[in-house]
Amino acid sequence: MNERATLASVVEDLVAANRILAGHGVLDGFGHVSARHPDRPDRYLLSRSLAPGLVSADDVMVFDLDSNAVNGDERRPYLERFIHGGIYRQRPDIMAVVHSHSPSVIPFGASSVALRPIYHMASFLGRQAPVFEIRERFGITDMLVREAAQGVALAEVLNEHAVVLMRGHGFCAVGESLAVAVFRAVYTETNAALQQQAIALGGTVTYLDEGEARLSEKTNRGVVARPWELWKARFAGGGGR
Amino acid sequence: MNERATLASVVEDLVAANRILAGHGVLDGFGHVSARHPDRPDRYLLSRSLAPGLVSADDVMVFDLDSNAVNGDERRPYLERFIHGGIYRQRPDIMAVVHSHSPSVIPFGASSVALRPIYHMASFLGRQAPVFEIRERFGITDMLVREAAQGVALAEVLNEHAVVLMRGHGFCAVGESLAVAVFRAVYTETNAALQQQAIALGGTVTYLDEGEARLSEKTNRGVVARPWELWKARFAGGGGR
Amino acid sequence: MNERATLASVVEDLVAANRILAGHGVLDGFGHVSARHPDRPDRYLLSRSLAPGLVSADDVMVFDLDSNAVNGDERRPYLERFIHGGIYRQRPDIMAVVHSHSPSVIPFGASSVALRPIYHMASFLGRQAPVFEIRERFGITDMLVREAAQGVALAEVLNEHAVVLMRGHGFCAVGESLAVAVFRAVYTETNAALQQQAIALGGTVTYLDEGEARLSEKTNRGVVARPWELWKARFAGGGGR
Amino acid sequence: MNERATLASVVEDLVAANRILAGHGVLDGFGHVSARHPDRPDRYLLSRSLAPGLVSADDVMVFDLDSNAVNGDERRPYLERFIHGGIYRQRPDIMAVVHSHSPSVIPFGASSVALRPIYHMASFLGRQAPVFEIRERFGITDMLVREAAQGVALAEVLNEHAVVLMRGHGFCAVGESLAVAVFRAVYTETNAALQQQAIALGGTVTYLDEGEARLSEKTNRGVVARPWELWKARFAGGGGR
Repeated sequence: MNERATLASVVEDLVAANRILAGHGVLDGFGHVSARHPDRPDRYLLSRSLAPGLVSADDVMVFDLDSNAVNGDERRPYLERFIHGGIYRQRPDIMAVVHSHSPSVIPFGASSVALRPIYHMASFLGRQAPVFEIRERFGITDMLVREAAQGVALAEVLNEHAVVLMRGHGFCAVGESLAVAVFRAVYTETNAALQQQAIALGGTVTYLDEGEARLSEKTNRGVVARPWELWKARFAGGGGR
Repeated sequence: MNERATLASVVEDLVAANRILAGHGVLDGFGHVSARHPDRPDRYLLSRSLAPGLVSADDVMVFDLDSNAVNGDERRPYLERFIHGGIYRQRPDIMAVVHSHSPSVIPFGASSVALRPIYHMASFLGRQAPVFEIRERFGITDMLVREAAQGVALAEVLNEHAVVLMRGHGFCAVGESLAVAVFRAVYTETNAALQQQAIALGGTVTYLDEGEARLSEKTNRGVVARPWELWKARFAGGGGR
Repeated sequence: MNERATLASVVEDLVAANRILAGHGVLDGFGHVSARHPDRPDRYLLSRSLAPGLVSADDVMVFDLDSNAVNGDERRPYLERFIHGGIYRQRPDIMAVVHSHSPSVIPFGASSVALRPIYHMASFLGRQAPVFEIRERFGITDMLVREAAQGVALAEVLNEHAVVLMRGHGFCAVGESLAVAVFRAVYTETNAALQQQAIALGGTVTYLDEGEARLSEKTNRGVVARPWELWKARFAGGGGR
Repeated sequence: MNERATLASVVEDLVAANRILAGHGVLDGFGHVSARHPDRPDRYLLSRSLAPGLVSADDVMVFDLDSNAVNGDERRPYLERFIHGGIYRQRPDIMAVVHSHSPSVIPFGASSVALRPIYHMASFLGRQAPVFEIRERFGITDMLVREAAQGVALAEVLNEHAVVLMRGHGFCAVGESLAVAVFRAVYTETNAALQQQAIALGGTVTYLDEGEARLSEKTNRGVVARPWELWKARFAGGGGR
């Protein structure tokens, strides 16, 4: 990722992120990925309402942190853009947000069993991922984060974590760049599948210790470009060698 | 989907539905999808006996609600067309029916554990999907719905639900359009896989509350065009971007 | 399948069977499929030692029922050709044999839990598939069926069944045609995966009753051409539409 | 594999091994495979830091057994090259090493349940695969084998085995050729998935006896060229038919 990201390069990466996440099945017809505007921290970039695998640069809209489209853009936005606005407001360090219904993660959002890092690739999970139970503050809903207050509530449960699960719905992964957020979304899915299998073995499971997770997470950030380049080459027609 | 569906547009959608369901593995060499005739509510459209992935417009036959081919069409029909006739007769609101042996759903048809919505994408399941046990009324059979009385019995168990499981056989998903029925068939498969994984975690599982399911289902109907367009583009050579 | 099968048509189908089974992952680098010679019931056709996905007509060798190559063919045969010879000798009704290490089936060969038909597509399993435990008669071996006596012993456990599991090794599926044997091999894999998931749900599981299995099996034989044509079209460059 | 391997042929096989393992998903953006230098037993060949699916001959670097790059090559190496150096030093019989985070294997590294051979394809596992618990000697780390002492410690746990699991991290498979090490890495993944499923069935599981494993392993070495040629043809643009 470019140190001095320009709007054009962020849009290009955002399109790549859509294609990569669709290619992995982390996004299907639903879910979305956004990036904070590189020049305006009070703006974020997100496609119009469209399946992620079909997103191109022309589809990208700009929103303020209340999740209102700016520049008079009247195209149909995602219903759940408030997820992104809520998180960007709460977490100034975050530059990218993925919201996904990735399959293996759904069981952990619905179960009393916590999602924990079973290997170093998912060390960003720390001790465990928090779960946003929308019923607690909003009662019986259609499960969507469809207003600003819900986005803020979700961001509060996310707190300083990298991932927040959403009961009966999906999860969000965040990062200081698109490459980091995409990495976390992909390996949240993988970790969930592997943790489920480990539990099914019936023995005791050793998870990453919090210290191990912290050290590993620091290391992983240094190598995040490697899968990003691979995935761009494979899914986004990128210039990988 | 076109508000004023013409026969040609329904046939085109029906071919797309066959390709999409085959592409997802919801249909393999077996199973089928039908649509009610747009101008004649007492007729329905269904391919001749052919693997769904190979169906073209020329293969579509027209049947009356007793599941007799009309127009003197003597091509070999599916043995189980009575599923479709039975449901269209019982449910005037239904415009499309999918019958599938989709893998993850089979265990729930055979198990005492009910299929329930573990996330909002499967909110059409309501509280839980009913199960058609063919032995109850028909004793020892070859498991197929191969006569009108069996189709009617199946439709009675379906009742007002969106999905009915068939013990030792498969399931049916219905909808007020092909896009809705296909959406439900795909996410029935996904929900089944995820519910199985959630149960295997060994903790307690929170399913969608009936109120949540009802509200979510209403929302989902508003966005069903998004995956439909994606899937047409991917599997049916559609004009998606 | 042709009623009056010629040698050329059987070889063509045998190549297709290799490609179809490789395409489904039922065969990988190992495993093999054979056909009885259409004019000489005391001969069978089997590729030289080669990964099934790479087999062409030129690779097909002819063996007698002692599994000796005839016509002076000195190419390297599969070590386990005795499986085929043993079964063709024991079962005059059988015209095709698949030997596979297909993944989901392996656990049932190693487990005390029997493989049973969870849905009508696998009704050929009858009450349950028998298991060949090579230790019983041959003690500690390399697990392979590498001599005539072992092939005969395997065929005896197969008896009148359609499928026999091999502990710690794989399974065999047989049929009165290549289309039937391939169908059974594919759905043995699927049934195993689904039965495992059904058991993991933790409730009670209702399997096909023996009467249901018998009736369903008869029906399925009437429609076996449908997946065969589909699979030829998809995996073997066949002329399906 | 060539009996008199030349440097050029080993590099060619090493590139193929990278592509094959990436094609199987045994390597993704991470993990790596190396070969001992055919003329210099105190040297090994390993790509620069790059996703395995993108590796070409030009990316191959040469290291000494302390895992220092030779020939003044200053390209960025993998952080965990010490795995390879440690094993080549400890095991003069070993000519190739795979390090992987292959999904189904991770649960066994984290669980108290041992990875054992459930079928003959994984007979190289012997009685069971040992587990390297990095905490035992190195305390709280970032989980990586990033210094020579850690590589030596890992090699000591590997001892005379073909595979060593790494808790919370992955595993290594070794062999007397690239074809053998790749075979073992692929079937370690498969065996892990199948053993997990067998355990989930809830009955008793019969694993390969140590004598069976030893005999089978000897047989398998004789046929390792068959999948290697298949996989080269499929994943590495090789000259298989």
